[in-house]
Amino acid sequence: MSLLNRVLSGERRAASRLMRMVDDRVPGTDEIMEALYEHRCGASYIGVTGSPGAGKSTLVNQLIVHFRKEGKRVGVIAVDPTSPFSGGAILGDRVRMGQHANDDDVYIRSVATRGNLGGISRSTPALMIILDATGFDIVIIETVGVGQSEVDVAAFCDVNIVLAVPGMGDEVQAAKAGLFEVADLFVVNKSDRPGTDRLVRELKQMIGLGHTDQLVFRCQANLALGENGVPELYAQIVKGIENAKKNLAPQDRQRRRAEAMIRMLASAEFGDAIGEFLKTQDDLSSPYKIVKAFFQSRR
Amino acid sequence: MSLLNRVLSGERRAASRLMRMVDDRVPGTDEIMEALYEHRCGASYIGVTGSPGAGKSTLVNQLIVHFRKEGKRVGVIAVDPTSPFSGGAILGDRVRMGQHANDDDVYIRSVATRGNLGGISRSTPALMIILDATGFDIVIIETVGVGQSEVDVAAFCDVNIVLAVPGMGDEVQAAKAGLFEVADLFVVNKSDRPGTDRLVRELKQMIGLGHTDQLVFRCQANLALGENGVPELYAQIVKGIENAKKNLAPQDRQRRRAEAMIRMLASAEFGDAIGEFLKTQDDLSSPYKIVKAFFQSRR
Repeated sequence: MSLLNRVLSGERRAASRLMRMVDDRVPGTDEIMEALYEHRCGASYIGVTGSPGAGKSTLVNQLIVHFRKEGKRVGVIAVDPTSPFSGGAILGDRVRMGQHANDDDVYIRSVATRGNLGGISRSTPALMIILDATGFDIVIIETVGVGQSEVDVAAFCDVNIVLAVPGMGDEVQAAKAGLFEVADLFVVNKSDRPGTDRLVRELKQMIGLGHTDQLVFRCQANLALGENGVPELYAQIVKGIENAKKNLAPQDRQRRRAEAMIRMLASAEFGDAIGEFLKTQDDLSSPYKIVKAFFQSRR
Repeated sequence: MSLLNRVLSGERRAASRLMRMVDDRVPGTDEIMEALYEHRCGASYIGVTGSPGAGKSTLVNQLIVHFRKEGKRVGVIAVDPTSPFSGGAILGDRVRMGQHANDDDVYIRSVATRGNLGGISRSTPALMIILDATGFDIVIIETVGVGQSEVDVAAFCDVNIVLAVPGMGDEVQAAKAGLFEVADLFVVNKSDRPGTDRLVRELKQMIGLGHTDQLVFRCQANLALGENGVPELYAQIVKGIENAKKNLAPQDRQRRRAEAMIRMLASAEFGDAIGEFLKTQDDLSSPYKIVKAFFQSRR
């Protein structure tokens, strides 16, 4: 059986092999990925964005429990910023799997960003496609919300959640990062902390200036701390997924998503290629000429 | 006299006309810009990065006063995030000029980002080159510190200042955005606020993990609030500029800067081009093929 068919039949080892081929840029991989893209099964995509420490993984682990109760298969892609000092990913996959480690219908993977400052590598869109094509019903993508790439990811998603925590200045950061535009649900997490009411109020005020269909939730995703608000959020996410499928004409929706996918792939390609190209150039004294030569070289 | 020579002789109207040509992508503009790039006069570049509200412009206005006392001509480029709701720039040029409005040796201009989420347009590197080539001694570039483009700007600068304010979670944000790597001077601004000591301590701890030649300052750039720390910061900036010119072998320094300039120009070009290309494509069902076609079209 071809690798494509093995991936399509849900074979995990084949999917892993394909991911390695994507990372290593093995010739012919794009053709397999393109075929997989056509064979997507209609997964629903959920974007979860928030600063490191906002509690994204704790919340996502809770959401997985709810989706599993409904029999949904859930894939999670955590786009990890690389620590500026250690050079290592903040969260490893094994740490992340936690309570779902023995559940074959849950898949969690951390992928590297292209650099300290975000920008997704080609593995993020590839993993989105692979999870969808192998039959995962829900694909959750966690990002830290820095950079254009995060907006592309959000444009692909059915529902986008922006996580904020009292006292972290997240509302300013979210506004600055342009995340107000893409959010469907704002979640004030760690709602046992002082400042929760104020942050909820501020978010509602900011929403008041723009879209009117955005909602603010408060939640405490750490179950050990009691009453948590996650069931209400989950219900709204399910509703949001349904709405996303209804609200936009299918061809508009498809076009927006296709554009986002192309931007993700093209920008990863661009980032790699400009770096490689610069290494081959000895004389950099004419930047405008070199930019021209770079684009001419990409054929 | 040619436009090039008029710009080189410091004629402001010629510089403005050239900037419009850059924005409008008038054919032949790149050649003029390339010639200007060769005729740079060796300006010193200072990067100032911080969240909206951190007090960047207040601080920069103070620094201008110090540089003017030394007879230096100062150009400021404020890379403004576009407000997600209004679509307008947060600060207009006229507002920014303030006390320097009648000083011909001070030039302040806000430039748009490519989108809500940062990414610089081609006008930022062009303005850097034009200010340098028309004889400004100091070029200050203000950014909000989101995205790869800011790292490129920082790589071009001689001295980089990261501004943080107590209680805004800036230290987390700076770490997340990879700004610790590029900062020479951390400034805790609005140092009359509670939490200043803690933030200074936290920044020093984070620095302790990485580079050892980074410094933390505290400052209150608003003169109305008394004792402000700006003179000490100014002295350190002057020292930093001298160090930058000494510390790295000239050819290394030139290469790093040239690479940063090329990345800025290429990424602005890429951002414009992919958007334009997508508009021309009716069928987006094969993303990998379209990415390939896009790069092939850029010759």
